[in-house]
Amino acid sequence: MTAHAPQTERSVGEVADVAAYMVGLGQAARAAASQMRRAATGDKNRALLAMATHLQRQRSEILAANAADLARGRESGLDAALLDRLALNDDRLDAMVEGLVQVAALPDPVGEIDGMHSRPSGIQVGQMRVPLGVIGIIYESRPNVTLEAASLCLKSGNASILRGGSEARDSNAAIAACIRAGLCDAGLPEAAVQVVATTDRAAVGQLITMPEYVDVIIPRGGKSLIERISREARVPVIKHLDGVCHVYIDATADLDKALAIAVNAKTHRYGTCNTMETLLIDAQVAERILPRLAEAYALHDVELRGCERSRAILDGISAATEEDWHAEYLAPVLAVRLVDGIDAAIEHIERYGSHHTDAIVTENYGLARRFMAEVDSSSVIVNASTRFADGFEYGLGAEIGISTDKLHARGPVGLEGLTTRKYVVLGDGQVRQ
Amino acid sequence: MTAHAPQTERSVGEVADVAAYMVGLGQAARAAASQMRRAATGDKNRALLAMATHLQRQRSEILAANAADLARGRESGLDAALLDRLALNDDRLDAMVEGLVQVAALPDPVGEIDGMHSRPSGIQVGQMRVPLGVIGIIYESRPNVTLEAASLCLKSGNASILRGGSEARDSNAAIAACIRAGLCDAGLPEAAVQVVATTDRAAVGQLITMPEYVDVIIPRGGKSLIERISREARVPVIKHLDGVCHVYIDATADLDKALAIAVNAKTHRYGTCNTMETLLIDAQVAERILPRLAEAYALHDVELRGCERSRAILDGISAATEEDWHAEYLAPVLAVRLVDGIDAAIEHIERYGSHHTDAIVTENYGLARRFMAEVDSSSVIVNASTRFADGFEYGLGAEIGISTDKLHARGPVGLEGLTTRKYVVLGDGQVRQ
Repeated sequence: MTAHAPQTERSVGEVADVAAYMVGLGQAARAAASQMRRAATGDKNRALLAMATHLQRQRSEILAANAADLARGRESGLDAALLDRLALNDDRLDAMVEGLVQVAALPDPVGEIDGMHSRPSGIQVGQMRVPLGVIGIIYESRPNVTLEAASLCLKSGNASILRGGSEARDSNAAIAACIRAGLCDAGLPEAAVQVVATTDRAAVGQLITMPEYVDVIIPRGGKSLIERISREARVPVIKHLDGVCHVYIDATADLDKALAIAVNAKTHRYGTCNTMETLLIDAQVAERILPRLAEAYALHDVELRGCERSRAILDGISAATEEDWHAEYLAPVLAVRLVDGIDAAIEHIERYGSHHTDAIVTENYGLARRFMAEVDSSSVIVNASTRFADGFEYGLGAEIGISTDKLHARGPVGLEGLTTRKYVVLGDGQVRQ
Repeated sequence: MTAHAPQTERSVGEVADVAAYMVGLGQAARAAASQMRRAATGDKNRALLAMATHLQRQRSEILAANAADLARGRESGLDAALLDRLALNDDRLDAMVEGLVQVAALPDPVGEIDGMHSRPSGIQVGQMRVPLGVIGIIYESRPNVTLEAASLCLKSGNASILRGGSEARDSNAAIAACIRAGLCDAGLPEAAVQVVATTDRAAVGQLITMPEYVDVIIPRGGKSLIERISREARVPVIKHLDGVCHVYIDATADLDKALAIAVNAKTHRYGTCNTMETLLIDAQVAERILPRLAEAYALHDVELRGCERSRAILDGISAATEEDWHAEYLAPVLAVRLVDGIDAAIEHIERYGSHHTDAIVTENYGLARRFMAEVDSSSVIVNASTRFADGFEYGLGAEIGISTDKLHARGPVGLEGLTTRKYVVLGDGQVRQ
């Protein structure tokens, strides 16, 4: 063991005064953020690669900690989906190591200067990209999020405070030890990444109400968690609410493309936020495309719920209710509605959608242009699957989440979303007249 | 009178159910925002120029309404500074008209697409600049803010709800009539700009807690107003708190430049947020520069409050207390402190500053570079006056305020700060593998 070899967190779940403990983390994070703001790119990358090394070395310890979490989870009756999200194995650990290597390879956004130009007064003005400061991340049972969040906050020069789900407490403590060891190896402050060591729920309440120590909160998890945090936070929140995503097949659509896109957008994965939940079809082409779609969906056991007019074409599908248009199924269920043209489609999307991701399939230039301009969603797509709305697919290199907010970051959030821009002014003695 | 000639607001101060009234404004604004999102640049510019015409035509009515506000203000004992901010005259009206013409001439940020590039999957991805939606602006007694805020929100494709101070209610109603008339002339929805017609304070409480109708709140005014709004808002706030700005004169500074910058940063205007409040001087050059500075400040009747070491050089200046380092004087008072090098200067700025605007005067390349990277303020300036931290000086063409927040917009906020970017994806039938 080297001097910096990771040790298992001793204090898991054993904090007496939660508020004081969280304030302590906040103060340490604030101090670390000052150092991280000026950290060299090379040191940040060295820390990330050192974490990867520690993760490799501590593989059996991490899997043992995870086994303890899983055993406790089974005892307390967690369902199979939750246990699956909680579970680590060699493949998942390999992916975590690979993720660290990838983040180390990304360009450092900090210090980038844009738009430097001369003003009539003689000064030059530009904007420099800088870290946000201290980022609080609140997530649920997946322990790999601990490492993902830590690596992205670190690379973008921020200090982070990570609060994972209590189900993953031992796994997170073991991963946290590797993170700390990596920071030490690179000479960066240990408090640059702090994993909350208590499972007390009061820790979350404290974390989201310390604007003096925390600059932004990013919750990752179910809708109720995010709604609660948004309601109670005194710190800005970058949030990700639901994805009620649409595909609209226009009358001029290439029907082969429409078929491929509509099937992929629904069936590629059911549980993701960029999965299509409602399919809108121009009534002019419904008779030609709906039977083909129904056949394809049947192969995937997707249940269709249709409007009156679509049910007149497709025998035996159930009727969609008002609730179906609002639904984020996250399941092999699809609402189908015929509409008369693009105005009706956009109106439906504006009324029922969640401003996440919406797509049009069309060969008409004007309609493509209108859909792009007028649909107010974080991703607007022409002739491709909604499933592309993703940080990796967009080339961000990494993703901390998808923002459904309008301010600051909208859509997939990568390293850039974890930074801000300040103005820099270069002069030569200029004064204001 | 034309069909669209402005009429004086009838309902000033006479709203029975404030909450219902504000919800009505919110719903109308949300509907108008959908139309404004797709409004043509030409129509927006036409509306701005038509407002200028109506303002010219209604000059005497506006001045009469303002006279009524001023008379009421004098009766209720408003102080001279407040009455001055409230007062309109021909010069100020000319400036308002000119402001509209300037905003019409600015490039339209809406629809701009950045970074469009091809991905290995075959899709192209870029980001399109779009309006935020509905913006609520809360301000105090200056009636010209009504027009400024309306014009910037309009040009950036947003709907706005404007709540000015009750002292200016008649002036604001008269200006609102011109705004509505201009919107009508250009065929844009009247609800694109709504001036709250009740002076009931409950209107503010309602406006900042309707996230379903309002996307962002921008408060303009004193610190207590902004703190209250930040505390109570359920809608994101772009806020401007205090400006405790510093100039640091390094040992390598050109002392003539240092003198000019330090004098300008303090004395150009006392009441502005980018005015220097504390001067930091490297102890190595203090004996050479401090007496010259003291002489210059004496000509402007600026009171100096110094640290022990500066008082040893300058006879008879009073001692600065801990409070002075925190103070935003907004007055001809300046705190002066000698420091030993850049680390001590940055430490002072980090501890006492407000992250607004800070400047270094230096001829040393490495120190200039360090100051720029390490000082965490919305504007960081090398060898120029802090007074340059301003939307017009930076070339934004207009300014809705200066943000001291880190998220979304930091520093002077122009049209771009009133927009957001969504992802646009162009494909040709691509599906996710």
